[in-house]
Amino acid sequence: MASPSSHRGQQHCCFNDWMNLQEHDLSELLQAQTVEENGGDKEVQLRRLVDKNVEHFQAYAQERTRLARDHVSPFFAPSWCSSLESSLLWLAGCRPSLFIRLIYALSGLEIESQIKEFLEGLRSSDLSDLSLSARQFSMVNELQGRTIKEEEKLSEEMACLQEKIADQPIAVIAKETTRVLGQSFETNEQADEALDDHSRSMVSILEAADKLRINTLKALVSILSPVQALDFLIAGKKLHICIHQWGNKRDQKHG
Amino acid sequence: MASPSSHRGQQHCCFNDWMNLQEHDLSELLQAQTVEENGGDKEVQLRRLVDKNVEHFQAYAQERTRLARDHVSPFFAPSWCSSLESSLLWLAGCRPSLFIRLIYALSGLEIESQIKEFLEGLRSSDLSDLSLSARQFSMVNELQGRTIKEEEKLSEEMACLQEKIADQPIAVIAKETTRVLGQSFETNEQADEALDDHSRSMVSILEAADKLRINTLKALVSILSPVQALDFLIAGKKLHICIHQWGNKRDQKHG
Repeated sequence: MASPSSHRGQQHCCFNDWMNLQEHDLSELLQAQTVEENGGDKEVQLRRLVDKNVEHFQAYAQERTRLARDHVSPFFAPSWCSSLESSLLWLAGCRPSLFIRLIYALSGLEIESQIKEFLEGLRSSDLSDLSLSARQFSMVNELQGRTIKEEEKLSEEMACLQEKIADQPIAVIAKETTRVLGQSFETNEQADEALDDHSRSMVSILEAADKLRINTLKALVSILSPVQALDFLIAGKKLHICIHQWGNKRDQKHG
Repeated sequence: MASPSSHRGQQHCCFNDWMNLQEHDLSELLQAQTVEENGGDKEVQLRRLVDKNVEHFQAYAQERTRLARDHVSPFFAPSWCSSLESSLLWLAGCRPSLFIRLIYALSGLEIESQIKEFLEGLRSSDLSDLSLSARQFSMVNELQGRTIKEEEKLSEEMACLQEKIADQPIAVIAKETTRVLGQSFETNEQADEALDDHSRSMVSILEAADKLRINTLKALVSILSPVQALDFLIAGKKLHICIHQWGNKRDQKHG
């Protein structure tokens, strides 16, 4: 099929391709999880699979940035997402600190299930492959601190950018714009230039946010063992796909 | 015309009604600005007009909250706004600090034009009705500090709410959800309950953000003289209507 010619169509297509790729990657990750084989070979294979998934995310972000240069604002309020999904966005994507929160949730779940098994006599006191070690906890904790600081910095930049709309030149151009009664306000060269300038700043902030998302993901999987990283990527993809599909159903229900 | 039966239709209608009311209010404000009459009577009339505009904003916020109780997430990513407008949203509306930034922009513009007129010999050194006094500047400045602090508090609450998606119970329900190959993930009772709970928190944050927007607006117009408040409301409404219409045109251009 030829790719759509409009910018909006290409953006929508880019997101759909990404969701389809995530579905495909999820199947592959789930399959890898069931392989019984142990030892060095499996470790290497899993690490390769994890790296491939991170690369896919990076390629998606690059393609998105390329398209954003033509028309950036839809990425901050995408019509192709369910409203639930869109309401959870931070700078056109998920909060990087969400990855870390997910690791903690998975870890808590693992400990809970191990305690249960231990109390039921099904397990010795050894920790499973999925439990984070004390050293890993401390590294994740340190990464969380750094990530939240970076998030706050970018949130502040976005606040400045949003506030600038009510300042020179845009607010003044709007104030001085006149129109024929009953007609809408036309953009003029001045307004277009100011909005183009604003768009360029939005692209920069999108790039910075994507960079933070990717770097946080990379740092996180490098702290985790391949088996843990696999479990984390599966949970992350399932969460994203579920929120996307649950959100669509809720939107449909409300017309 | 009968009001639409779907929640989405009612939400869209609520926004359209608000934009139409703003158009009507803008005309009335512009007309009031041209009235030559001076003195106490005009002051009282203008103050009444300003208060009416603030009440309209408050009524819109109340109606929105009522509709949000049925389905909240579309208000955070509204399909009825242009993508430019949506990309500028902070908690489903404009940042309250934007009102203050606009006051500063208008004040700067006024001073600039007075200096120009003074240098051209068209004006004595007296300040016009629209210039902020030193006392007003200090009050606006103090309001800005308070508003930004409140904004930061609400932004943090929103961040917590967004991060909680990757925690118990939602992330765990998603992780444990299975599906028939090729089908989408169905919501179950557990997921629905968790998402309903999340929605209730989103309604609370929407209400808190609207309260801050309204309180900031009220505090601001109470600092301004009726003539200044009129000028500010005109500039604010023109800015909103322009961004809405310019954004629609830019979306159309990009397909």
